[in-house]
Amino acid sequence: MVDDGASSRATDLVSRVLSGEQRAMARLMTRVDDRATGHLQELQELHPHTGKAYLLGITGTPGAGKSTLVDALVSLLRKRDLRVGVLAVDPSSPFSGGAILGDRIRMQRHALDPEVFIRSISTRGQLGGLSRSAQDFARVLDAGGCDVVIVESVGVGQDELQIAEVVHSTVVVLAPGGGDDIQAIKAGILEIADVLAVNKADREGADATLRDLEGMLSLGEGPVRAGVGHGLAAAPGSVQRAPGEQGDADPGWRVPVLKLAAQRGEGVEALWQACEAHRAHLHGSSAGQQRGVRRRQAEFRRAFRELLHEDACERLGDKLTQAVTRAGDGTDPYALALALIEGLRGTTQPT
Amino acid sequence: MVDDGASSRATDLVSRVLSGEQRAMARLMTRVDDRATGHLQELQELHPHTGKAYLLGITGTPGAGKSTLVDALVSLLRKRDLRVGVLAVDPSSPFSGGAILGDRIRMQRHALDPEVFIRSISTRGQLGGLSRSAQDFARVLDAGGCDVVIVESVGVGQDELQIAEVVHSTVVVLAPGGGDDIQAIKAGILEIADVLAVNKADREGADATLRDLEGMLSLGEGPVRAGVGHGLAAAPGSVQRAPGEQGDADPGWRVPVLKLAAQRGEGVEALWQACEAHRAHLHGSSAGQQRGVRRRQAEFRRAFRELLHEDACERLGDKLTQAVTRAGDGTDPYALALALIEGLRGTTQPT
Repeated sequence: MVDDGASSRATDLVSRVLSGEQRAMARLMTRVDDRATGHLQELQELHPHTGKAYLLGITGTPGAGKSTLVDALVSLLRKRDLRVGVLAVDPSSPFSGGAILGDRIRMQRHALDPEVFIRSISTRGQLGGLSRSAQDFARVLDAGGCDVVIVESVGVGQDELQIAEVVHSTVVVLAPGGGDDIQAIKAGILEIADVLAVNKADREGADATLRDLEGMLSLGEGPVRAGVGHGLAAAPGSVQRAPGEQGDADPGWRVPVLKLAAQRGEGVEALWQACEAHRAHLHGSSAGQQRGVRRRQAEFRRAFRELLHEDACERLGDKLTQAVTRAGDGTDPYALALALIEGLRGTTQPT
Repeated sequence: MVDDGASSRATDLVSRVLSGEQRAMARLMTRVDDRATGHLQELQELHPHTGKAYLLGITGTPGAGKSTLVDALVSLLRKRDLRVGVLAVDPSSPFSGGAILGDRIRMQRHALDPEVFIRSISTRGQLGGLSRSAQDFARVLDAGGCDVVIVESVGVGQDELQIAEVVHSTVVVLAPGGGDDIQAIKAGILEIADVLAVNKADREGADATLRDLEGMLSLGEGPVRAGVGHGLAAAPGSVQRAPGEQGDADPGWRVPVLKLAAQRGEGVEALWQACEAHRAHLHGSSAGQQRGVRRRQAEFRRAFRELLHEDACERLGDKLTQAVTRAGDGTDPYALALALIEGLRGTTQPT
């Protein structure tokens, strides 16, 4: 590659990220978002400098108080002099984008702290974009010297399951009562929990929710780190966690259920200790190490799928545009897609 | 293609689907789920026989009573002698799979009705799998003579936005109070609503929630059919719907806000009338027709992306497996993915 100035600027950007400069980190994230020429090269240059950060997912039912908890966690981590990154996932929407940013106002007391980096992730409607962005941004934050990267995601759904694949540990936050916890179980959100927290513990029903969760855990009806993406079936009635060949089932980890009043800062210390215990467990157990392998493999699969699609779109150019038009007019999408793929197969490009 | 018996069986299956046979429909859906050889051919054979069904999405906050509403709607449609398909979307999870099926028990009074076809859709952790399955299954139901296909989805998230791209009209169901509606707005769920329903209208707070929603609508802060996947930004302070070049903004449709008590069957008739009005609007307006074009284009884009990936995986075979192993060991996923894609480009296969 010719050193045409662009690549030396890129290298410059990478070194600035590696020296922990916030503005450089923000700029590289924007380049990733824009799929700017050279961003893949830059991400690859960061790779050898990653693997130090602890990636922590915070997810849960709507209204459970996730943002408040994240805010309290950041304060706690700053007191320990740790560098913190926060990635706030917001479902793809121009409207909610604004609303979610409003939420971030609460975080403003950290906004001027040079050791705290806060960024929203939006998918812009790109399916799979969320976990890819989270993964790329976490790479930038990790290389930029963040000790902890918190990924906060809203709501329940497929995206949250995917986010759980990006992070090391996942905290699921619930609010007491309201039947929402039952719904959450149905939606599979509990299954991704490494740590369970019942927030707003001063509210009525908190103890009942806590007991429900603990009951489910001891009956083996509860959380099973169920190998997202592997279709692992949990053995019915199994105690704690189901054994599985491919899944994330981990008989050595008992999911703690904690009470929180994040707004008053109560229970946040204990929550962080539970996260650190889980982190130690991941390092120290073969199940934990296997999970790391699966996490990296999932990362690769996502990257492959995305880059394959981008490459094909680039090569097809006008042909793709024409197919989109014909699809809009009512031609069978499968017939159109198969014809394009057939065409790509027959095209050899000089490498 | 040689008529080796397999293809004649396939054609037989297609004709049985076209004659509306429930067992054949179920079998073809299973073949689609399994990506069985020939399933794409079968789906293509169905295509000329589709386009008659009305695809209706029902989504909303957890606990809003979506299943009860779907059940009531099915009864209403059966009284009008319409053939109905129900696709229940359940977030990918072996656990919740079971739980959601439990939910379906309520629907059992329709289970023996040969004019009602009920099926759960699970993604098995495949990102994007949900909308693809919904789209394929809806094609089977449409070709099999269903007049209405109801797609019920749980929770809020990226998947629900994608489901909204598959159906003609989307009903968003909320329960009164609890702050959940505010959260729902943040999560962008309201923006996909063509019809808004406040269920459990006999509960405290129903009227307040109704007024909130109507207030937002009249202030233009409310639902805007915001061109999922197009990143359309709504103009701040615009009345009702924002104009946009690419989005689904539709100045001719005013989103109705309805009160429901689905458990007692109250308001269900009015809800269905609102859906029919929206359906008529889609047929009769240029904005509605444009939306149909975009829906079909999105369908094509999904199909292309998925088939491209499947084709690449098939062609790569062992090379992909090796890359997955190396990714698990810590090699940069981007470096691995780019090398595989480069390899695919250089490979010409006889067509």
